[in-house]
Amino acid sequence: MRKILVIGSGKSASYLIKYLLEKSESENLLIIVGDINYSSAKKLIGDHKNAQAIVLDVFDKHSRETAIQNADIVVSMLPARYHIEVAKDCISFGKNMVTASYVSDEMQSLDKAARDKGLVFMNEIGVDPGIDHMSAMKVIDSIREKGGKMILFESFTGGLVAPESDNNLWNYKFTWNPRNVVVAGQGGAAKFLQEGTYKYIPYNRLFRRTEFLDVEGYGRFEAYANRDSLKYQSVYGLDDIKTLYRGTMRRVGFSRAWNMFVLLGMTDDSYTIDDSENMSYRDFVNAFLPYSPTDSVELKFRHALKIDQDDIVWDKLIELDIFSASKMVELKKATPAQILQKILMDSWTLAEEDKDMIVMYHKFGYELNGKKHQIDSTMVTIGEDQTFTAMSKTVGLPVAIATLAILNKKITTPGVQIPINKEVYEPILKELEAYDIKFKEYDVPYLGYNPLNL
Amino acid sequence: MRKILVIGSGKSASYLIKYLLEKSESENLLIIVGDINYSSAKKLIGDHKNAQAIVLDVFDKHSRETAIQNADIVVSMLPARYHIEVAKDCISFGKNMVTASYVSDEMQSLDKAARDKGLVFMNEIGVDPGIDHMSAMKVIDSIREKGGKMILFESFTGGLVAPESDNNLWNYKFTWNPRNVVVAGQGGAAKFLQEGTYKYIPYNRLFRRTEFLDVEGYGRFEAYANRDSLKYQSVYGLDDIKTLYRGTMRRVGFSRAWNMFVLLGMTDDSYTIDDSENMSYRDFVNAFLPYSPTDSVELKFRHALKIDQDDIVWDKLIELDIFSASKMVELKKATPAQILQKILMDSWTLAEEDKDMIVMYHKFGYELNGKKHQIDSTMVTIGEDQTFTAMSKTVGLPVAIATLAILNKKITTPGVQIPINKEVYEPILKELEAYDIKFKEYDVPYLGYNPLNL
Repeated sequence: MRKILVIGSGKSASYLIKYLLEKSESENLLIIVGDINYSSAKKLIGDHKNAQAIVLDVFDKHSRETAIQNADIVVSMLPARYHIEVAKDCISFGKNMVTASYVSDEMQSLDKAARDKGLVFMNEIGVDPGIDHMSAMKVIDSIREKGGKMILFESFTGGLVAPESDNNLWNYKFTWNPRNVVVAGQGGAAKFLQEGTYKYIPYNRLFRRTEFLDVEGYGRFEAYANRDSLKYQSVYGLDDIKTLYRGTMRRVGFSRAWNMFVLLGMTDDSYTIDDSENMSYRDFVNAFLPYSPTDSVELKFRHALKIDQDDIVWDKLIELDIFSASKMVELKKATPAQILQKILMDSWTLAEEDKDMIVMYHKFGYELNGKKHQIDSTMVTIGEDQTFTAMSKTVGLPVAIATLAILNKKITTPGVQIPINKEVYEPILKELEAYDIKFKEYDVPYLGYNPLNL
Repeated sequence: MRKILVIGSGKSASYLIKYLLEKSESENLLIIVGDINYSSAKKLIGDHKNAQAIVLDVFDKHSRETAIQNADIVVSMLPARYHIEVAKDCISFGKNMVTASYVSDEMQSLDKAARDKGLVFMNEIGVDPGIDHMSAMKVIDSIREKGGKMILFESFTGGLVAPESDNNLWNYKFTWNPRNVVVAGQGGAAKFLQEGTYKYIPYNRLFRRTEFLDVEGYGRFEAYANRDSLKYQSVYGLDDIKTLYRGTMRRVGFSRAWNMFVLLGMTDDSYTIDDSENMSYRDFVNAFLPYSPTDSVELKFRHALKIDQDDIVWDKLIELDIFSASKMVELKKATPAQILQKILMDSWTLAEEDKDMIVMYHKFGYELNGKKHQIDSTMVTIGEDQTFTAMSKTVGLPVAIATLAILNKKITTPGVQIPINKEVYEPILKELEAYDIKFKEYDVPYLGYNPLNL
């Protein structure tokens, strides 16, 4: 039997393991799931005869090396910062490797060693990054094949709550790491290209410079700019493109309300609040407002942000119970971001029966025979339950399909890779369709930002 | 003759040298001014017989050591990061040392060595830090001596243009390092204490949470919070104080206008703008606004920041000519902050005949015999010309006076010091009065932030 070692049995591993177990009979596979927490690994595989759970502490050299040496291919579903030890062992023992994470500088530095040994190190093959790369490159390549010249590329992804479980005023629940949501957009200006000019948005305006996106059957969304819109410009071969923008999708109205937290400083993760442990939610909010012996926290908040008495953003705050004088922060030496996360988790945690949703939206503008055209491409995936979420499906399935394809020598280009080549994206996107992860493509009038060529 | 070595002959050295030269005859002093630029040093001393200019490169060990070894006391007027090499030599050769800079961790680490050798390393003895420490501690000590308990301390300083030279809409010109003005307030939330509660202001709101200050004969000022209001809490013995706030003074209206740059991201110093070299001022502004083939940069600016057509902040922008399509940035790979600084320097550079002004304002709240009291203390110094500025006077004179006092063994406490002890501040403040650097003290009704004890 051919042995696939999956390291990490967290949230995103459910679909991955399910797929591999389903294929284990026909493909003659033994799936070994290693986790520092044995019962977590065991739970995922149940009593499947072609699977095995092991204790694997990635920081324990011996157990890590033994497991990797014993495998034919290694999948790391660990947090990104832990991949490198696994990757070095894969070089040492000559094993192919797959991750869903961004290629770190450390990972990239192994490129030559991997190529020298003929090893495939496939990364960024989850949903974002992953399905976004593949679905974008498919359309970009097809435009090029017919002789078109790319002039605009915009790409948006959102991890959201499914419409049937969407029952709060923010139209949002945490479907992934809440911390990433709270600190999103921090650390520098968002940079992108619009009609040939670089544009920069500072954090305090990021959530006010959104654009709208309509998805057939799902209504309207909004998107704010990612910090790294130009990251894949060269990789995608878009060096001459005029408009390049990547964004994060939310339901309309989320960003305007979220901006209240940004403006007051409640998303800051760079310092700790004194005596946070003994603060109420109300005390926390008050720390960002001027002292007054008489004025209420509510009125100071409204005044500071000029919130009208009938503005819906106010109802969103009330829904979070953020002015509660009885609910306590209870976190020691916490940053504003950590405290805000706790408050939001009270309201935005998925309930047992809630379903999540992944939405993706690409816009491709191009010139062909002197005319401008546009293709919009959209994908929506709804989760089944809290284990088989849309997130774990869209992350885990591409990882699983790529792993099997590498094992079967259908993907063979050696080195540190991301899935932007036809050899990789074509079969994977095709197989994903069987799992209902499908893109709809629409020919639409080219709009861009200067439709009249002024 | 007793030899005083002054290293650095920059902007802040003029008054310092002048004072020491005036005292050189009666005090039997030889003033040796060392600078990497000989003519700069020579210019400051002219043909004075008790002075000598030398070439001193602080990174050239031999010339540095020779000069320090030859001196009886060393004054470093170098940028703060260069003090440490001088300080280490002073330890080696057993010389006292004076600087106007904040005590760095490196400087602090020499405390024991200085004490072991009985050396005085006096720092923070310019204007801010310096005169602020001394004038504050004088009042705080006097309140304590009469049995009062400090409940509030607020301290504000501003380096501004003198009223007679104040001829722009911002009521501001650069009187010191322009860069520090452009990046002021960045790097974390401002933190302070109001009536026993910690308050935090993020950068995007810093310039909207100002307070007003009226100075007799000079009208109204405003102040925004410094990042480090609590820095001297323990040093000043104010651990139990209820309100503690430090701020920077501007003329009223400056901060509201400055906030436009903050909100659009034009003060960011953390990344470089692409092709900044070939941008016009107008292009620079446009980089922070959405693309449009038709809408003007002006209207996009007004819309983004919701600026009414008759708002005075608009006239302030126009005065800076920031929408000019012909004036070029000309700086390669510049950060937004560097570009904004260049634009501002066109308008805010002191003219030949312009005078600068230093303003300081302290508020001391205290309880005595069950009643609350307040003392306000203010100081205004106007410069003479562009060489003998208020800034160089208020920085250089305390340094000079302290240097002579140490040389004459009137200040003797060894170790790394700042001027918060009576031994130091009393004679220096007294002598500063002779140079018209005087504080006016006013007994005013205690206001604080909760005057009615609600």
